[in-house]
Amino acid sequence: MTTMHKLYVVKIGGQVIDKPENLQRFLSDFAAVSGPKILIHGGGAIATRIGDQLGIKSSYVNGRRITDRETLDLVTMVYAGLVNKQIVAGLQQAGDNAIGLTGADGAVIRATKRAAGEVDFGYVGDLHADSVNIGLLQGLLESRATPVLAPLTLGNGTLLNTNADTIASSVAVALSTKYDVRLMYCFEKQGVLKDVSNPESVIRRLDHRSYREWLAAGIFHDGILPKLENAFAAIESGVKEVLIGDAKDLRKNTGEVTSGTLITA
Amino acid sequence: MTTMHKLYVVKIGGQVIDKPENLQRFLSDFAAVSGPKILIHGGGAIATRIGDQLGIKSSYVNGRRITDRETLDLVTMVYAGLVNKQIVAGLQQAGDNAIGLTGADGAVIRATKRAAGEVDFGYVGDLHADSVNIGLLQGLLESRATPVLAPLTLGNGTLLNTNADTIASSVAVALSTKYDVRLMYCFEKQGVLKDVSNPESVIRRLDHRSYREWLAAGIFHDGILPKLENAFAAIESGVKEVLIGDAKDLRKNTGEVTSGTLITA
Repeated sequence: MTTMHKLYVVKIGGQVIDKPENLQRFLSDFAAVSGPKILIHGGGAIATRIGDQLGIKSSYVNGRRITDRETLDLVTMVYAGLVNKQIVAGLQQAGDNAIGLTGADGAVIRATKRAAGEVDFGYVGDLHADSVNIGLLQGLLESRATPVLAPLTLGNGTLLNTNADTIASSVAVALSTKYDVRLMYCFEKQGVLKDVSNPESVIRRLDHRSYREWLAAGIFHDGILPKLENAFAAIESGVKEVLIGDAKDLRKNTGEVTSGTLITA
Repeated sequence: MTTMHKLYVVKIGGQVIDKPENLQRFLSDFAAVSGPKILIHGGGAIATRIGDQLGIKSSYVNGRRITDRETLDLVTMVYAGLVNKQIVAGLQQAGDNAIGLTGADGAVIRATKRAAGEVDFGYVGDLHADSVNIGLLQGLLESRATPVLAPLTLGNGTLLNTNADTIASSVAVALSTKYDVRLMYCFEKQGVLKDVSNPESVIRRLDHRSYREWLAAGIFHDGILPKLENAFAAIESGVKEVLIGDAKDLRKNTGEVTSGTLITA
């Protein structure tokens, strides 16, 4: 049996991207992580701000942005342009050979436009089992490049707006046949909390059994549940570990002793 | 002696990008060109329009945009985001495996920030002899991908705004040690005209000798001179052919019998 290399699939969003000093620190930490790694970013708050300036009103249903034609142009500008290229330039400066991609570039992530049901989400893409171009990502990683993925995918002749958490877990799952993947959700909290009002109450380890027990006990608050469901779905599909933790603790959380919540089977 | 493969380095700008129906037609023609090829695009008119909406005033000296911090953000959104990704998605749809890049991605084009002299152009990058990452472009071409370059380069930890014609000629020169390069400037005229008021008066062939003679005779109008100077500089640096022609004639102009102006040594 051959040992597989470790791969970090890291998703950042929200406050990490929004504050220049946070982003700067994160990028310098991320560049210092050795070995293969992939970064996936969001950028919704910046898109909303620039949309306001352009008179494009952001509207949401169940926390998901409705993406009409002009909103698609807006998020393409912000995610693929402003945010992705600032991250790439920052990583290059820190000595990391980053290469920014949307799902359209090299058809690295294909998606299907979500059919209009009760809600028409517009240009929003859903992923499927064959969405990820594994060969392209593996080739880049083997040439020591770091793919930086914006949350846009390739539909039929158009880009589609796609949730960054979902892209991260799909990429992690797709590459889990080639690597020992640690999927990392980096946000502004220390991890999954036992008591949402106490930032120190981080649950350090979670597996299927403890997850089910604590779920039944009503421990988890609504905000964290989608992340946990995503995490266990990834684990069930071959991802070795999922880490939910503070973006500021990236260095610690790419090590053996982590400070966030480490999820395994 | 081994025969080198032909490589088309194609620059589009202005009206080709600005009108959706022109762009659509061009992308379908470009996708149909077989063999290795690279596309470089501008996008200045769209940047100006979106800048107006955002209250970012475009200002120019000698036809070159002054790029302050917020203008850099604007052109990053428009060139790297909106324009680059629309082109990439359109080419993918037409069966061409396009991958969009700024100079920062994989550090494919490095530049030096222009020092402030009489004019401070701001975040504007000038190219030098080692600017182009030949290995990355060659690797992409050999894996049958089509690089699509936005006119932004990598400075010290920042993107820099860089003239697309200059990027095209630098890329053509850098790759001329590996390929027989035809550098193509596609615009909305048939080619270099003998009589600027007569669109039919295309000069079909130009070499050093005829260029010097006609230059002395005052044949060329001001608008075309920078393109011709660029073209002959590229030829002197190893590019085999430069073609200046109509974007609508791309298919013809990638063949043996061209309709535009074909420039050789």
